[in-house]
Amino acid sequence: MIIVTRRNLDQGKVDEGLSLLSKENLAARTVSWNGRTLVVTHVRPSDGIITKLEAMGIAERFVLPSHTAQLASLEFQSEKSTVKVGDAEIGGKRLTVIAGPCSVESRDQLLNVAHAVKRAGASLLRGGAFKPRTSPYEFQGLGELGLRLLSQAREETGLPVVTEIMEPSRVELVAKYADMLQVGARSAQNFPLLRAVGESKLPVILKRGMMTTIDEWLQAAEYILLEGNPNVVLCERGIRTFERATRNTLDLSAVAVLRKKTHLPVLVDPSHATGGRDLVAPMAKAAVAAGADGLMIEVHPTPDKALSDANQQLSPEEFEKLMNELEPIAQAVGRTIH
Amino acid sequence: MIIVTRRNLDQGKVDEGLSLLSKENLAARTVSWNGRTLVVTHVRPSDGIITKLEAMGIAERFVLPSHTAQLASLEFQSEKSTVKVGDAEIGGKRLTVIAGPCSVESRDQLLNVAHAVKRAGASLLRGGAFKPRTSPYEFQGLGELGLRLLSQAREETGLPVVTEIMEPSRVELVAKYADMLQVGARSAQNFPLLRAVGESKLPVILKRGMMTTIDEWLQAAEYILLEGNPNVVLCERGIRTFERATRNTLDLSAVAVLRKKTHLPVLVDPSHATGGRDLVAPMAKAAVAAGADGLMIEVHPTPDKALSDANQQLSPEEFEKLMNELEPIAQAVGRTIH
Amino acid sequence: MIIVTRRNLDQGKVDEGLSLLSKENLAARTVSWNGRTLVVTHVRPSDGIITKLEAMGIAERFVLPSHTAQLASLEFQSEKSTVKVGDAEIGGKRLTVIAGPCSVESRDQLLNVAHAVKRAGASLLRGGAFKPRTSPYEFQGLGELGLRLLSQAREETGLPVVTEIMEPSRVELVAKYADMLQVGARSAQNFPLLRAVGESKLPVILKRGMMTTIDEWLQAAEYILLEGNPNVVLCERGIRTFERATRNTLDLSAVAVLRKKTHLPVLVDPSHATGGRDLVAPMAKAAVAAGADGLMIEVHPTPDKALSDANQQLSPEEFEKLMNELEPIAQAVGRTIH
Amino acid sequence: MIIVTRRNLDQGKVDEGLSLLSKENLAARTVSWNGRTLVVTHVRPSDGIITKLEAMGIAERFVLPSHTAQLASLEFQSEKSTVKVGDAEIGGKRLTVIAGPCSVESRDQLLNVAHAVKRAGASLLRGGAFKPRTSPYEFQGLGELGLRLLSQAREETGLPVVTEIMEPSRVELVAKYADMLQVGARSAQNFPLLRAVGESKLPVILKRGMMTTIDEWLQAAEYILLEGNPNVVLCERGIRTFERATRNTLDLSAVAVLRKKTHLPVLVDPSHATGGRDLVAPMAKAAVAAGADGLMIEVHPTPDKALSDANQQLSPEEFEKLMNELEPIAQAVGRTIH
Repeated sequence: MIIVTRRNLDQGKVDEGLSLLSKENLAARTVSWNGRTLVVTHVRPSDGIITKLEAMGIAERFVLPSHTAQLASLEFQSEKSTVKVGDAEIGGKRLTVIAGPCSVESRDQLLNVAHAVKRAGASLLRGGAFKPRTSPYEFQGLGELGLRLLSQAREETGLPVVTEIMEPSRVELVAKYADMLQVGARSAQNFPLLRAVGESKLPVILKRGMMTTIDEWLQAAEYILLEGNPNVVLCERGIRTFERATRNTLDLSAVAVLRKKTHLPVLVDPSHATGGRDLVAPMAKAAVAAGADGLMIEVHPTPDKALSDANQQLSPEEFEKLMNELEPIAQAVGRTIH
Repeated sequence: MIIVTRRNLDQGKVDEGLSLLSKENLAARTVSWNGRTLVVTHVRPSDGIITKLEAMGIAERFVLPSHTAQLASLEFQSEKSTVKVGDAEIGGKRLTVIAGPCSVESRDQLLNVAHAVKRAGASLLRGGAFKPRTSPYEFQGLGELGLRLLSQAREETGLPVVTEIMEPSRVELVAKYADMLQVGARSAQNFPLLRAVGESKLPVILKRGMMTTIDEWLQAAEYILLEGNPNVVLCERGIRTFERATRNTLDLSAVAVLRKKTHLPVLVDPSHATGGRDLVAPMAKAAVAAGADGLMIEVHPTPDKALSDANQQLSPEEFEKLMNELEPIAQAVGRTIH
Repeated sequence: MIIVTRRNLDQGKVDEGLSLLSKENLAARTVSWNGRTLVVTHVRPSDGIITKLEAMGIAERFVLPSHTAQLASLEFQSEKSTVKVGDAEIGGKRLTVIAGPCSVESRDQLLNVAHAVKRAGASLLRGGAFKPRTSPYEFQGLGELGLRLLSQAREETGLPVVTEIMEPSRVELVAKYADMLQVGARSAQNFPLLRAVGESKLPVILKRGMMTTIDEWLQAAEYILLEGNPNVVLCERGIRTFERATRNTLDLSAVAVLRKKTHLPVLVDPSHATGGRDLVAPMAKAAVAAGADGLMIEVHPTPDKALSDANQQLSPEEFEKLMNELEPIAQAVGRTIH
Repeated sequence: MIIVTRRNLDQGKVDEGLSLLSKENLAARTVSWNGRTLVVTHVRPSDGIITKLEAMGIAERFVLPSHTAQLASLEFQSEKSTVKVGDAEIGGKRLTVIAGPCSVESRDQLLNVAHAVKRAGASLLRGGAFKPRTSPYEFQGLGELGLRLLSQAREETGLPVVTEIMEPSRVELVAKYADMLQVGARSAQNFPLLRAVGESKLPVILKRGMMTTIDEWLQAAEYILLEGNPNVVLCERGIRTFERATRNTLDLSAVAVLRKKTHLPVLVDPSHATGGRDLVAPMAKAAVAAGADGLMIEVHPTPDKALSDANQQLSPEEFEKLMNELEPIAQAVGRTIH
């Protein structure tokens, strides 16, 4: 249960409430949420306790979500969240397109793409510096050098940058350079990492794991929210199935399901989901029509020469064409993209 | 390999060609295809044989598709197929919407829906008379009575009707009443049934099986095509995955993949794919944006009282609203729906 | 609910009971089961009706299984079923091994294998005459000629034979030659076929579909049982997953789960499940240890030259070696194999 | 390619070799492996370079595994590895059984179980101190207190202990108390964690991820091996499929597949795989029959009161019974368990 305490409640009062819950052996924690203190319990307190918390002038509102992911639920917050990253806003009427190369490979490669995607209407720049690779013999990313190049690209273009974070101890380093953190599919249930990005309070993209159900995904988001970080954006990127014609199976129904369950913005990454350049455009359109709040698309100046994911990156020209084709679909569902 | 014989070639010449192939132990069969005879071999004949077939004045063109599904391939036919059913045409610029109840339950129910979906812009009426049900204790459909009601609905509304066929020996019966046959997901690899609907030459919707890869699906279509029935329409209806928030996982990427592999029209059934009324509209929009040639949607006058699939059927009002919302998306991808 | 009527109840009494149920709009059907009449209802009748059926001297016992598959449930029959096929018995203390080639290819091939597997201790001979093949261009089986060869092999070896049946209208033909029918994985939810093999009253192996849950599988078995055919044997043969190192993923837990849910015997087919010759022996051993009632194993005189499934068939020598290695494992779980 | 250098080669020579590779832009790294230096390259060097490395007296043997996981391959090491943990040895003739509670809950609980599993023949004690839980509201483990209790249990029983590690920065802490580290299913592709446990040189159990293919799993193991830690034990624990009667689907074929690909020992965890107490014993038997090198089984003094995974833990009595039943199966496959 989420116990929303009164505005400007002093810490002493909060402690009284916690102590009451503790006497009844109820696990609870406080969360600082948009200037208010929330007390979140693991199970529902008894009616007696609820009455007391009200009488003591501590609680203003009690929310008992039907879903395990309490702070992520629509019962807790019925209006959609928006997440601000620099000048960009994710979750508003305008769709957010995040574009850039799979991996940061060089200054030229990154700046070339950064300018191109900005021109075409992207709002954020993506690029991997620490790359999770199936094999230790594959290109692992440029590391901190990649981060520096990303921050240079931001200076040159004004685009805020988002990059993947793989371990809790690197949050500080990555935060020095990036505006938004990304938790990748393989880290979707890396709970220490989720807590760490929660504590950072930075905007974060939480990708769905290849085998994560929608419910598990929301509970992963809850780990971040529970650290008092409301800036969580979900990103569907395909799940693993028996089908082999695509790299993963893009589950666009997840966008519609999430709309009924959570206030968090939802992006779609058609690049990783399909693994095929020809499939990115139709799936990007489908994602917008399904109600996604934005897209995450891989763009490379010379896709065939990419050091990772060569098959699925668009050229800047292909990306620009796609952006133009997306506009009327966005408008058909009451959004805009430019 | 597909050996396209010369137009108006006499049977004697065709037999000469077959006899040549047979001497070399090459399995081959003739297919009558849009007024032309095709000789289709299981493996590639030698260059020597190919030269002879040309020299003998038998072959006009040799097609060696890269895919096992030869007649279904774009190498054999690069322009998209259209399939005519009564006045409706599937695969053209206008999207085809097939609507109606999961099961035919009564004359009133069916006619009520038939008129409503016609008014809203549907081109075909669907309704199950023989229902494949997981449990023998579930409603199995009205059988021939259901077929009669479907043909009455056609008379009253002018809408051609499509209904599911489950066994080869019923093709004749169903063909008496219906304009188009449907092979359901559970029959996706029922090869005797595929051959039988092939022989019928009737238009047929081939749904994807819950565990069928796109390649296997095309090979199932090939069973029908190889009987000389070019009127095959594919329909994506969700595959089975670990996700439990939806009945199946709608694989919209399949629409885009098929576009690169086959000339056959592709529909999407968001009702069975999602199993949830709230999810039908967003997924229908996404399907149109992804490039589907049409939709198959379950509509029931009083969904909550339906004898099957109560959770996923739209009311006539919801259906009409959806049809209106689809138009601008159709236009955004160069199609129309009305 | 299963209403077990009194032994030797005359038809008039049964009709009285049915008429009572019918008045209450309760769907019900009679099933002749081991010399007794069962009345099976789709939903639970009211207490009033139950009391009446007892008072009228019709019902002896009422069984309300917790599972949809009523006749298949342990609540209906707590002792394990055994199914007799010729001299063989499936479900008893002795494990049943069914062996033979994937496809019947020739008289020599079949007799060679038949003698070899008999010598090694197999109890039934398997061999495909009608083959369900993904592509129409693959070898489709010898058809009736294959059936004739199977029955010759039985005459020569005394081994009863089992072969796959793909469509209802062929049951009569196949039954002329074979002792036991097999419903393959692709037909696991071919309901007309299930009804037809039910009506035949012949022993039948019902393979699990690649995407069939255990619950759906039991409900498929129920279709057969409900026709009054108690001779149903289940066979796990692998499900479809994302893993690509094996053809399917053998779900041995299904054997243990079924033991808790049904009285029907359960076989395991490690050949189709793994698709690899090296993997057959370890998985056969594992199946026996998990409690399977027997195995179905593909054996070919010259596996590398097989017309289908060349990679997964054992040579007669490999099969004999495996049979010897299985004996101590069988004994370790209180069974025997020879 | 793995370049096995001559025994006792001095560092200068190794550097010469590395410098040669570096001139050709070949990524390479040295690995200290059982007292020998290996130079491992990401791609195959040219024949010219290979000849030079031989001529320079650097290389003794060149191994070019067919698999991406080079150090894990049978081509590199054909004899099976054994991993020593305290007095226990994993991978030898005697099967290794690791048993203990899902979570360490209290001193009494742990010691009670530890003594019981030791008496029954277990070789290692397991117990979770840091628990990866889907929801932040579930019991997260006792943390360092749990580790202390584990080390007390080792002192009292002599059993070495294994416990899960979730983040790189905790390796040092956990290593203070535990004899063996476990990387859980959700961390199967947590590459920074894999590197960290590699650097620790401690014995490590690498569980298969719920969606990890066998090939990906071996590449994850390669991350650990490449840090010079040869003490890697794989553990199959079920993959995620559509089946819902079990928590996961135990993929025992993986045991047989791995035997053909790697020298690393393979355990099976039937507790997490099935999620049901009744299913643990049959699957444990099947795992032994399939050729597993041991088992990992959850045992709790009072399973119904467990703070996590209550449904799948055995009581000490059930565990003892199982151990006795496993012995004859172990012997049937040429192993022993006691």
